Amino acid sequence: MPVFLSFDEADFEARFAQLLGMKREEAEDVDQAVAGIIADVRARGDDAVLELTARYDRLELTAAGMAFSAAEIAAEVARVSPEDRAALELAAERIRAYHAPQRPEDASWVDAAGASLGWRWTPVSAAGLYVPGGLASYPSSVLMNAIPAKVAGVGRLVVTCPTPDGVVNPLVLLAAQIAGVDEVYRIGGAQAIAALAYGTDTIAPVDKITGPGNAFVAAAKRRVFGRVGIDMIAGPSEILVIADAGNDPDWIALDLLSQAEHDQSAQAILITTDAALGKAVAAAVEVRLQTLERREIAGASWRDNGAVIVVRDLVQAAALANRIAPEHLEIMVEDCEALAAMIPHAGAIFLGPWTPEAIGDYVGGPNHVLPTARSARFSSGLNVLDFMKRTTMARMTPEALKAIGPAAERLAISESLEAHGLSVRARLDRLNG
Amino acid sequence: MPVFLSFDEADFEARFAQLLGMKREEAEDVDQAVAGIIADVRARGDDAVLELTARYDRLELTAAGMAFSAAEIAAEVARVSPEDRAALELAAERIRAYHAPQRPEDASWVDAAGASLGWRWTPVSAAGLYVPGGLASYPSSVLMNAIPAKVAGVGRLVVTCPTPDGVVNPLVLLAAQIAGVDEVYRIGGAQAIAALAYGTDTIAPVDKITGPGNAFVAAAKRRVFGRVGIDMIAGPSEILVIADAGNDPDWIALDLLSQAEHDQSAQAILITTDAALGKAVAAAVEVRLQTLERREIAGASWRDNGAVIVVRDLVQAAALANRIAPEHLEIMVEDCEALAAMIPHAGAIFLGPWTPEAIGDYVGGPNHVLPTARSARFSSGLNVLDFMKRTTMARMTPEALKAIGPAAERLAISESLEAHGLSVRARLDRLNG
Repeated sequence: MPVFLSFDEADFEARFAQLLGMKREEAEDVDQAVAGIIADVRARGDDAVLELTARYDRLELTAAGMAFSAAEIAAEVARVSPEDRAALELAAERIRAYHAPQRPEDASWVDAAGASLGWRWTPVSAAGLYVPGGLASYPSSVLMNAIPAKVAGVGRLVVTCPTPDGVVNPLVLLAAQIAGVDEVYRIGGAQAIAALAYGTDTIAPVDKITGPGNAFVAAAKRRVFGRVGIDMIAGPSEILVIADAGNDPDWIALDLLSQAEHDQSAQAILITTDAALGKAVAAAVEVRLQTLERREIAGASWRDNGAVIVVRDLVQAAALANRIAPEHLEIMVEDCEALAAMIPHAGAIFLGPWTPEAIGDYVGGPNHVLPTARSARFSSGLNVLDFMKRTTMARMTPEALKAIGPAAERLAISESLEAHGLSVRARLDRLNG
Repeated sequence: MPVFLSFDEADFEARFAQLLGMKREEAEDVDQAVAGIIADVRARGDDAVLELTARYDRLELTAAGMAFSAAEIAAEVARVSPEDRAALELAAERIRAYHAPQRPEDASWVDAAGASLGWRWTPVSAAGLYVPGGLASYPSSVLMNAIPAKVAGVGRLVVTCPTPDGVVNPLVLLAAQIAGVDEVYRIGGAQAIAALAYGTDTIAPVDKITGPGNAFVAAAKRRVFGRVGIDMIAGPSEILVIADAGNDPDWIALDLLSQAEHDQSAQAILITTDAALGKAVAAAVEVRLQTLERREIAGASWRDNGAVIVVRDLVQAAALANRIAPEHLEIMVEDCEALAAMIPHAGAIFLGPWTPEAIGDYVGGPNHVLPTARSARFSSGLNVLDFMKRTTMARMTPEALKAIGPAAERLAISESLEAHGLSVRARLDRLNG
């Protein structure tokens, strides 16, 4: 049974805190194994990647066969139905349109001291996108990772996607093609992350790695962080729905289940001001669970991690939502915007009853790679800035140096950094001399 | 002796690659110790922090004495000279003025399908700034970390700064006061990072941790990443100067030494089109090293990691600079802007002979917390966005859902995520029914 909580219970705060602190995912201790895999790929390059692919994916490749050739991609994408292709193209177009205005502006100005200041944004040269294989091989994730990179202006886009037993998802290849990916390799796991970070004879290294993956991939990303940039370490998916009376319980049930069906560790929570709606949603979930294809996964997620919380009012709802800092937040109350303004800590917000979260997974436009596990308190969903970096620029004139140089010299001396001070002093002496 | 390289030598590429791959810092293997410290602080809170502070900083504190009181801060900052205070205030004012325009804009629009889309930026609620103690306790770093956080709108700003043997740097406290820091704790090391990330009875947890530190601090930041946001794992400082003929060798020597004096592992490189200038700079470095206070550190850095590289032309200079991706880049050539435009991969660029890097460390305005160890390929110096996060917003109308919902449903089905599809279908059926 999911947790049922009501604000008028004496132990409400304690039980909510317990819900918040719940450990949904046992971190598999794969770090030592991953350290070994990374060292192996660094030492032996392609050979290590090929051996590990044979071992983990039961797939014998040659170095030349690691990448999909243009002919192989063409043959695979030809199998995609026109309807699926059209849907992917609509999604790509909308994701592109949403991300395009995220391109940041350069700046430059001259200040009162005469100093020219500013900054410049530039894309990373090469990015690697990790795409999981098997059941969780989502073409939509290819679009969500690749398109912001492309909008940023990344020059070289690489996808790694394992194909266990050689099974390929043609939609993944089509999504890569639509998004303008340059290279697709049929490798996965920590070995793919190591190859992207350090390079092999076949795979040139990249500067940034994004995309979800299993425990091995997550541990490898954490280890190569610093050598390359990474996006985030993603945890299981979550949704929080805040609804008042008058909503359709079945719609809410389906929205909750659309996260619960991802993963047994996923979490779906309803906060409502209407106890009757809470009960009706819980009942509707049970009805839907009778027929849902993924009812075992979704049912386990709902039973183990789900919750229905009845609150006094929307102020309390907002306070709890900020503590949860949900990855996905659906707001279905009379004044959605007013409530949204009270909840800074959320990855993505879906407003009103006509905006099921699933729209955001595919065709809404905003990114579906979002901060999980309360990290919306400090991080953002994947966006164009993840593939760019800012260089600061400064130019002093002799007059500007005269105006602000002495303060720099003084602070350098106070920090016992003599050469810092002298580098300013030598120039000031020339001006004064 | 520093490395001397010239483009006309046969083994130039091999020797440059060797310079690039040089490992300047042996990563101390402190990870297991740090894991233990973090677990201890999580389990025992204040008690653990106090014991570790007694052990590592030789300082007996009580929980109540961990924070500097207002009276203690007032007494310490009263010791600062008016000149030092004025210099810090000028620095703070200029850093604030540079960072203020980095505040990002929210966006919202309605697209052709009738969907309302946009995003919203909000600050993290609380940030912790790690300030090293002892020799590397730099008040300028307090300003560089705290001011962007304040500009972002962070509600609660916490500084931790160890005070080994109880020795306090009054300028650090003054910088914290000027920057509007709310709490200052006299603790450091991995225990401070753990306390900031997980909280204790005395120290409420924060959402984001920034600031430099030793190997223990770096390992702790890597471990708490995900629980909180972190800025980066900083390595030893670096400078690259690109200069053509006609520059003053002594100015360049001092600029190189101003990084070399930070740390024996620091790296200072000159790239020049003029072999004679290269030799003159190397000679000037030796002269300055005879009298420099920190000559042992700076001399070791220059001998072990320094380099003078003579290039054919500025195109080659730019190509090498992009491979180095320096933290600090000084450009002293005739057309500085043109060369800067050819070098996307640098943390901060200082243009022209009147802009010594030391200006940027203190009073230029741009941040001095910058990407080291070639990470300027994919990351930026500390800035206002590091203390903010973006929430995406979407609102569909019934018409918008009719227009794009079917594509979402189709993609959901192709990914075997039935509930995703049903959550859209249930709404479409209502519209059609």
